[in-house]
Amino acid sequence: MYKHSIYERVRYADTDKMGYLYYGHYAKFYEIGRTETLRQAGMTYKNMEEVTGIMLPVVHMESRFLRPAHYDDNIEIVTMVKEMPTKMITFHHELINQDKKLINTAIVKLFFIEMATGARVSIPVDLKNEIAPFFK
Amino acid sequence: MYKHSIYERVRYADTDKMGYLYYGHYAKFYEIGRTETLRQAGMTYKNMEEVTGIMLPVVHMESRFLRPAHYDDNIEIVTMVKEMPTKMITFHHELINQDKKLINTAIVKLFFIEMATGARVSIPVDLKNEIAPFFK
Amino acid sequence: MYKHSIYERVRYADTDKMGYLYYGHYAKFYEIGRTETLRQAGMTYKNMEEVTGIMLPVVHMESRFLRPAHYDDNIEIVTMVKEMPTKMITFHHELINQDKKLINTAIVKLFFIEMATGARVSIPVDLKNEIAPFFK
Amino acid sequence: MYKHSIYERVRYADTDKMGYLYYGHYAKFYEIGRTETLRQAGMTYKNMEEVTGIMLPVVHMESRFLRPAHYDDNIEIVTMVKEMPTKMITFHHELINQDKKLINTAIVKLFFIEMATGARVSIPVDLKNEIAPFFK
Repeated sequence: MYKHSIYERVRYADTDKMGYLYYGHYAKFYEIGRTETLRQAGMTYKNMEEVTGIMLPVVHMESRFLRPAHYDDNIEIVTMVKEMPTKMITFHHELINQDKKLINTAIVKLFFIEMATGARVSIPVDLKNEIAPFFK
Repeated sequence: MYKHSIYERVRYADTDKMGYLYYGHYAKFYEIGRTETLRQAGMTYKNMEEVTGIMLPVVHMESRFLRPAHYDDNIEIVTMVKEMPTKMITFHHELINQDKKLINTAIVKLFFIEMATGARVSIPVDLKNEIAPFFK
Repeated sequence: MYKHSIYERVRYADTDKMGYLYYGHYAKFYEIGRTETLRQAGMTYKNMEEVTGIMLPVVHMESRFLRPAHYDDNIEIVTMVKEMPTKMITFHHELINQDKKLINTAIVKLFFIEMATGARVSIPVDLKNEIAPFFK
Repeated sequence: MYKHSIYERVRYADTDKMGYLYYGHYAKFYEIGRTETLRQAGMTYKNMEEVTGIMLPVVHMESRFLRPAHYDDNIEIVTMVKEMPTKMITFHHELINQDKKLINTAIVKLFFIEMATGARVSIPVDLKNEIAPFFK
């Protein structure tokens, strides 16, 4: 398993009338989690698009909302890649608040798409080599 | 089954660097779908909170991204309540673009929560009576 | 003067912890105002980019927040072009709530930029011809 | 003058079809700037609302967009309070990209409002005492 953790604060912009993190804004928290996971693995998503010519559109997302997140909460985004990616990469997220309570879990699946052709391709070799040792 | 349809345009604000509707912004499209479904059933969500004292936090969301939505696309949001709600209400959404292609499906589940106590309660009687004929 | 009016509802996604339309989300209301103003003048912004090859980045925005907008308010966005655009187009917006109260005014200035070169250019001829009669 | 600096990265969620940070999302960058400025001054905005009972709605915003911000740019948000606040607080922001180029300047003005009454009040004494030495 490849694992990563980062903290992100709930801003006023993210809250809604209930005083909670709006359910649609969790997607950005997941994005931050997977982007920084890739960066830790030596691959910026920016370079994946601009250098490798591969983009990663989301094809499936599932979220479970266990507890609300509130304004100014400093949320830990734990991101896990549990299986070696092939033509798809699956990120598992756990969001944890400052009281160490699990507030949200999510599974986000993305395809590797060659931008020039729109074709599905395999995980870039550099990224594969970097994370492969974690799946032995 | 109780069914509703409304159109919502993809704005520049909703797009991302790929030129697509950002995956996190679909949640607002679902919100529009379910809010207008309730309004059609004679119950504004605003009144549900302010008069009935019941709020509807999302507890589960699942989205399948089949095709991208592009800037200025006029998206039909089809919303269906397929089962008579009890202490939970489940909305099924289908998003359809102007070429009549299905671009996204989603299932969003919400609890009825009494705001004063935080307790789970049953669907408000007025709403139940309004939609009950559709489930016979 | 060229003038346009459209209604846009404040969604849960747009509210913040105060229960107000978050100050950052007004920009999307202005975007809707100016996009639909252009559409009324026979020019979709989508075509301006894709056919004419001209984009309109915002270079200056000024907003005055007079009253809050609340959840589910149906806001009238009045958009005015008060002077014939040259290399810049200036939109004046007035946002009015359902009680006919002025809640927000804004001035948004955009350049016409040729996407291929990044150079500032003049207003596209088709758009100029369409709106010119309103400035005589 | 009271001054503060923090970095915030442009996420995919923040970009638009041009590949730029959408003009409406700068408001959240300003929010982060002023919130962290207050935190540095020993006053969380959360506590200002929940303990002091004072909220800070934005009443005026002016933004100048000098250069685009791009995906994954790590933007420095410089926030300055140039005058001792009274019943209004004015934040000046300068956003600077990783090439040390100034991309955006903004002035955001907020009122101190007593939440219980809606009345305009003066800057909370604790905050005043903390920042007063910087205006001598």
